[in-house]
Amino acid sequence: MSHRMSHRPAGSLMNRLAELAAVTDTPGALTRLFLSPAHAKAIPLVEGWMREAGLQTHMDAIGNLVGRTRNSAGKPILLLGSHIDTVRDAGAYDGNFGVLAAISAIAEIGEELPYAVEILAFGDEEGVRFPQTLSGSRAIAGTFDPAALDGKDADGMTLGEALRGFGGDPLGIAAIARDRKQVLGYVELHIEQGPVLEAENLPVGVVTAINGASRFSVTVTGAAGHAGTVPMAMRKDALVAAAAQILAIQRLAAGIPDLVATVGALAVHPGAPNSIPGRVTYSIDLRAPSDELRKQAIAELGREIQQIAERHRVETVLRQTHDAAATQCAPWLQAQLASAVAAQGIEPFFLPSGAGHDAMAIASLCPVGMLFLRCKGGISHTPEESITEADADIAVAVLTRFLRQFKTET
Amino acid sequence: MSHRMSHRPAGSLMNRLAELAAVTDTPGALTRLFLSPAHAKAIPLVEGWMREAGLQTHMDAIGNLVGRTRNSAGKPILLLGSHIDTVRDAGAYDGNFGVLAAISAIAEIGEELPYAVEILAFGDEEGVRFPQTLSGSRAIAGTFDPAALDGKDADGMTLGEALRGFGGDPLGIAAIARDRKQVLGYVELHIEQGPVLEAENLPVGVVTAINGASRFSVTVTGAAGHAGTVPMAMRKDALVAAAAQILAIQRLAAGIPDLVATVGALAVHPGAPNSIPGRVTYSIDLRAPSDELRKQAIAELGREIQQIAERHRVETVLRQTHDAAATQCAPWLQAQLASAVAAQGIEPFFLPSGAGHDAMAIASLCPVGMLFLRCKGGISHTPEESITEADADIAVAVLTRFLRQFKTET
Repeated sequence: MSHRMSHRPAGSLMNRLAELAAVTDTPGALTRLFLSPAHAKAIPLVEGWMREAGLQTHMDAIGNLVGRTRNSAGKPILLLGSHIDTVRDAGAYDGNFGVLAAISAIAEIGEELPYAVEILAFGDEEGVRFPQTLSGSRAIAGTFDPAALDGKDADGMTLGEALRGFGGDPLGIAAIARDRKQVLGYVELHIEQGPVLEAENLPVGVVTAINGASRFSVTVTGAAGHAGTVPMAMRKDALVAAAAQILAIQRLAAGIPDLVATVGALAVHPGAPNSIPGRVTYSIDLRAPSDELRKQAIAELGREIQQIAERHRVETVLRQTHDAAATQCAPWLQAQLASAVAAQGIEPFFLPSGAGHDAMAIASLCPVGMLFLRCKGGISHTPEESITEADADIAVAVLTRFLRQFKTET
Repeated sequence: MSHRMSHRPAGSLMNRLAELAAVTDTPGALTRLFLSPAHAKAIPLVEGWMREAGLQTHMDAIGNLVGRTRNSAGKPILLLGSHIDTVRDAGAYDGNFGVLAAISAIAEIGEELPYAVEILAFGDEEGVRFPQTLSGSRAIAGTFDPAALDGKDADGMTLGEALRGFGGDPLGIAAIARDRKQVLGYVELHIEQGPVLEAENLPVGVVTAINGASRFSVTVTGAAGHAGTVPMAMRKDALVAAAAQILAIQRLAAGIPDLVATVGALAVHPGAPNSIPGRVTYSIDLRAPSDELRKQAIAELGREIQQIAERHRVETVLRQTHDAAATQCAPWLQAQLASAVAAQGIEPFFLPSGAGHDAMAIASLCPVGMLFLRCKGGISHTPEESITEADADIAVAVLTRFLRQFKTET
């Protein structure tokens, strides 16, 4: 990115994103885990930009960086934000874009709004370091479980210990939970991390829901045997049965709008070229913006998988390993975001989010809305993550307009 | 097996098989690799039984134990035999049965035959220890490649070194190649290692051919992506494409009699539950008694796999890793074996061999024939390998009758 920096003003959003991306725990790659040295370095950097935008700042008990508009005491609060932690060998925009774009919008507005704005830079959205994730947004929502403080990282350090070392306050977490009567809503800008906006040739899109997700571990048990000596008709080939199930999963998902299903991991036993597979294990990841559709699909999937198992004379056992309800984005926030998009001369486009976000945790506190930014090839969680300056500027302009026109839910 | 031994005469075939199975390099399991200490102990044991049956014995330059009928100098030779090496943690019957059953048949006959019989106990059919396999039978056939003497085992010992330490003679191998003008044929008894005879409720079956085999390594390249964010219609899921190909392989093979095809190994990349598979590699093992059918099937398979790849918008590359022609069993030997089976009051049944055998190597020297013995569940290469005494007795009776009625090819 450095070759582009010279063309931009020093304080531009793209330059800041590049500057923040250089704050890493692993030279040559961007890795900024929750409560790490890089996280500690990122906070004053972002804090400086918040202050430049006229915000009052502090780091709270769980390590969230908070910037609040001045002269707003007692006013109802609109929360903005995203996260500044990253995965290992990350891209520059996931999370960080939403925080810095909100700062840019507030700086752009430069005047008092009829409500308070707080920009929250959460520190634990990726969940890479400790067993629990969304610690920062859960704390704000009042759903942080103190038991999570005992969760350990790979070096055996607990979240509580790491938090104290970071200048946080495990005993103060409960107190940062917001009063739902004072909070108007939460709006998050984020890169799409998928290819839909690119395919639609649109810079931004309004998120309808964060998909609910179910995961299953499936075991197919047939009978192993010698690849040369068992006639086709006498086989109970676990992989052939699994292949038929995988195609059925694909067909089912393809027939339901906005539902996605993925078999991402699969292992064959014994797994030798000259052995008929006796056992196959595979994963199913199924996501949908509607919990009802997701549950219907799971029921149908279960039936189809068992029918295929019978047809192939194998046994199939599904074990659910994960279940998370969908988070609906508030229709009135969707409408106001869409109106701001339209005001930029862009067709409002609505899409669900397949990935999880801090907004999921905040949704238990207040209405949430999200605006997605197009990213190149839908690629995320790698250094190849890429956005354009033009798109970023549009997103900031949309947020700016949204904030200026913002009306409380009626 | 020890609990059964008391019910049988000391010299019975089943007792001898149990006694030989106790000769192992790994206490508690049967592992008897080529030129190992257990192989060295097995030779005098089997040699003693050969002598009891009236055979003249010697170990040849490649470590084959050879037992020849007395007073047969100058007579044309019928070769019998199988192997006495095993896989690791083997069953008691694979190979060993064919050698000891031949000894039992010769002992049963107890009279001079109008031709010489040589029983060959080969030492390297499983190919577990050194890179090359079938060393013993290749040497007899005159197709042993001296370069194989430089092949090393896992400890870095060459075949040549091991052979010298065993009492063999690397420089004498060429001289043990038989003169095809003196050899009438080769007949091998072997457990089926498959489930066909059990399903047919038959103790023995006549082998038509040892299947030719082709192996391929297939790479399917699609596009990896986030399992939550890429709509079904925009995916290039390598595992979904591979699943369709696996089903096509199964369908094709099921439609061609005696042809078998197996996808036994499969790996998914990146292989995480929340990642769309970007690349899948898998193996194809395809075997048929007819090389023409096998080649036709491979051509059709290649076309179908590529059509499926196109339909799923992925790339598929097939790389052949193995190709071995089928070995036809001589029709006149099949007919004489079938006649001997029928004379025992058993319906002659013909089947191909899916596994490889020493007969493949000997086929370049002389006509070959094989008789398969039913084994429990078609299971082999494990301690669970199992045959019944009644079936073993039938097989010996069939071989005895075959030898008494044997007529040279006309």
